[in-house]
Amino acid sequence: MTVQDVMKAHPQPTSVDHNALLRCIEECLDCAASCTSCADADLAGDDVQEMARCIRLCLDCADACDATGRIVTRQTAPDVGVLRAAIQACAVVCRACGDECERHAAHHEHCRICAGVCRRCEQACDDLLAAIG
Amino acid sequence: MTVQDVMKAHPQPTSVDHNALLRCIEECLDCAASCTSCADADLAGDDVQEMARCIRLCLDCADACDATGRIVTRQTAPDVGVLRAAIQACAVVCRACGDECERHAAHHEHCRICAGVCRRCEQACDDLLAAIG
Amino acid sequence: MTVQDVMKAHPQPTSVDHNALLRCIEECLDCAASCTSCADADLAGDDVQEMARCIRLCLDCADACDATGRIVTRQTAPDVGVLRAAIQACAVVCRACGDECERHAAHHEHCRICAGVCRRCEQACDDLLAAIG
Amino acid sequence: MTVQDVMKAHPQPTSVDHNALLRCIEECLDCAASCTSCADADLAGDDVQEMARCIRLCLDCADACDATGRIVTRQTAPDVGVLRAAIQACAVVCRACGDECERHAAHHEHCRICAGVCRRCEQACDDLLAAIG
Repeated sequence: MTVQDVMKAHPQPTSVDHNALLRCIEECLDCAASCTSCADADLAGDDVQEMARCIRLCLDCADACDATGRIVTRQTAPDVGVLRAAIQACAVVCRACGDECERHAAHHEHCRICAGVCRRCEQACDDLLAAIG
Repeated sequence: MTVQDVMKAHPQPTSVDHNALLRCIEECLDCAASCTSCADADLAGDDVQEMARCIRLCLDCADACDATGRIVTRQTAPDVGVLRAAIQACAVVCRACGDECERHAAHHEHCRICAGVCRRCEQACDDLLAAIG
Repeated sequence: MTVQDVMKAHPQPTSVDHNALLRCIEECLDCAASCTSCADADLAGDDVQEMARCIRLCLDCADACDATGRIVTRQTAPDVGVLRAAIQACAVVCRACGDECERHAAHHEHCRICAGVCRRCEQACDDLLAAIG
Repeated sequence: MTVQDVMKAHPQPTSVDHNALLRCIEECLDCAASCTSCADADLAGDDVQEMARCIRLCLDCADACDATGRIVTRQTAPDVGVLRAAIQACAVVCRACGDECERHAAHHEHCRICAGVCRRCEQACDDLLAAIG
């Protein structure tokens, strides 16, 4: 994605491991969009009543990933405590949403795919936390 | 705000203390908007170079408060772990942003006011965390 | 709300009518939050299947009002074309969402209240457009 | 991106041209993230005072693209008027932001790259508008 090239042209790039950083940003963007789409697909299904928890967690996950993706993208004057708090919260929400989507993976292809991107985003958050130290 | 009346009409309201919940939502909305405005006021000042950290933290705080405000507003099928993670992260970001704005309170009225709303939002998050248990 | 005091302390305030501006911001914030809550209340009802369109439009309206509220809050180096485009789009989304919520006002109190805030936000957008010229 | 696979699994996919739709979503996500990063890179430069308009428009563009990306991703019960209004506004903001970034392309590599993604997003919005009719 182009955002990675914009980030590389930053005049004062962060010292955080760039591979971990770029991967976390990309997963946050993809997870936010996938969760927006999964909630919307749930809403059009004929079992929407049973999918209420899945919709709710997908909406939460989209919001958390959007905010975290933005915060992690910024390299100017970073505050490690802020970064850590945002990434940790994002990992927690991705895990809860991934667990819920997985429960519906057998009968909803969109949930199966969405569970996968939630897992990858959670992992990318954990890896970035480890890189930040 | 009208959102409080909409929330009171929810068919399955959450069991979380409603005063703490409504106050947290209102403070998140006000803090997000105030931080958006404070970053923008910093940008128009003649000392913008020195305000880079303040702008960055205000942008982070607006994003965190927006996401947390949305997550906390939802009452359907709540996940306590998700709520706790989002509110904790929001409190951390509000504290960092409030500290930074306070440093500029003597020479920037918008920072003085913004520091105050960050403090109130941090407190509302802490109070809601205590209410959730 | 505190955001109004932060905006008044801006070093280079916009020349746009401040009453119209502040009212539009406040209505955008309230409408975004009310629509987030109305979509969530729809989701917990026993007629959620029939509420799919209402949920979808409430989610759209929350996103449009959030973005427009942020854009309109910024006073530094305003671009009138950008402001106009954002506010016009917001008014269109508020009208569609208000119409849909009104359809359910008799059997869902949250839709009745949400329709009202959508109408007020649409009007505040129209008034701000007129003030911008 | 994974979001495209989630969208293909929607039980009631929209009748809008899927290539135009998927390209618009991907460009909105990339443009939102690139603008967040460009505003942040501007903020760390030693000419930040001259970059105030660029920062402001990048922040506006990130907000407009985020909201439009979400709205366009939803396929359930689409409202053509809402889609059209959101996409049109997004194209206007992308054009203004692309024009401003282009002015700084010779001395800021991040602005040169960001201008490119703004142009692509504007084009993707125009193409989707044409496809919607």
